[in-house]
Amino acid sequence: MKKLKVIEVKESVFEDNNADAERLRAQLKGEKTFLLNLMSSPGSGKTTTLLALAKELEGKLTWGVMEADIDSSVDAQTMINAGIPCIQLHTGGMCHLDADMTRQGMNEFGRKDLDLVILENVGNLVCPAEFDTGAVKNMTILSTPEGHDKPLKYPLMYETCDILVINKTDVMQYFDFDKEKAVEYAKMRNPDIEIIFISAKTGEGVADLAEWLLKNVKEWIKD
Amino acid sequence: MKKLKVIEVKESVFEDNNADAERLRAQLKGEKTFLLNLMSSPGSGKTTTLLALAKELEGKLTWGVMEADIDSSVDAQTMINAGIPCIQLHTGGMCHLDADMTRQGMNEFGRKDLDLVILENVGNLVCPAEFDTGAVKNMTILSTPEGHDKPLKYPLMYETCDILVINKTDVMQYFDFDKEKAVEYAKMRNPDIEIIFISAKTGEGVADLAEWLLKNVKEWIKD
Repeated sequence: MKKLKVIEVKESVFEDNNADAERLRAQLKGEKTFLLNLMSSPGSGKTTTLLALAKELEGKLTWGVMEADIDSSVDAQTMINAGIPCIQLHTGGMCHLDADMTRQGMNEFGRKDLDLVILENVGNLVCPAEFDTGAVKNMTILSTPEGHDKPLKYPLMYETCDILVINKTDVMQYFDFDKEKAVEYAKMRNPDIEIIFISAKTGEGVADLAEWLLKNVKEWIKD
Repeated sequence: MKKLKVIEVKESVFEDNNADAERLRAQLKGEKTFLLNLMSSPGSGKTTTLLALAKELEGKLTWGVMEADIDSSVDAQTMINAGIPCIQLHTGGMCHLDADMTRQGMNEFGRKDLDLVILENVGNLVCPAEFDTGAVKNMTILSTPEGHDKPLKYPLMYETCDILVINKTDVMQYFDFDKEKAVEYAKMRNPDIEIIFISAKTGEGVADLAEWLLKNVKEWIKD
């Protein structure tokens, strides 16, 4: 078993997180690294989605994952076991990551050769949406067992995300999940949001998600 | 359709929330009202559990619900439609309730004749656990689609809760949810935590949950 690197990220000393996030994004542009900020409720399938993506991305780009959690390293260990470069960030109780905490992780990760780094944020639909991490794009996952009303209750998460991944379509029939309403409510919060339906478990739709990611990464790292 | 009362709760002006929570608890003791703080991830089934409880509690005590959300009133409307006294609290973007925000809700609710008030907190496994609301007991729900590893990742939620309700047992077989590990991890965080398995959808186990609640309410309001 490969050794897992665990970083205790410290609360930011910068007062203006938005300006700091812009600085980090500019730095990443220079280094030709695309940073994706992945957010969702606890248990919506962030880690399983990344494992499913790994198969689709293989040989097409170089990538790695930063797993942010309050405690435990179970997700990072899962990534390492699957052969995906990964470090664990512990937030010391903090409910979100800001740009400086993300930078601390990127510096410790020390992989400037990666085309893509995916930050798996703390599982929380509220606070992570309030802090720009310096990512190029924001993604959120909504799993069908959670219900289609989440965009009504957590507006900022949907307003700040570029793409919504609706996961666990394979069990949709067991839950009172209305696809059309989920799309309607998400677009009510953000008319420009892209929406992809997947089952990370069966692989359905994951190729479309990989295609979206590859297109965006290529656009960012060209020239 | 009955008219729904919506309260915009304001951020607390009290510096010491713990002392303020003790004051609220003492006041509720005098008024013979039991306050339960219900927390969980988004979409774990808080509202469905309350609807299932309604059938079991009927005729046994008087109760009402305060629904806390950042936005929307869908849950409160569901309660009102089911004939349960309920008000909606909007937090203005805040990720949790503290004791003073809870007091604002209780004052507006204005139902001192109720034996039991259940506060459905904002769906979030992180921040609500950090703030004592003045409740007599804390309850958290973990739904089987979320996975059994949540006590590892969100320690404080399990440390602060008196009872863990494991919901959606009817769909457990479709998910990689290990009952024994869920119990082991929860008790690792809190050896005294009580654990009840339910399906709010089918009603399985809800009578046990109602019994726990009735026992605790009677203990609080006696004399």
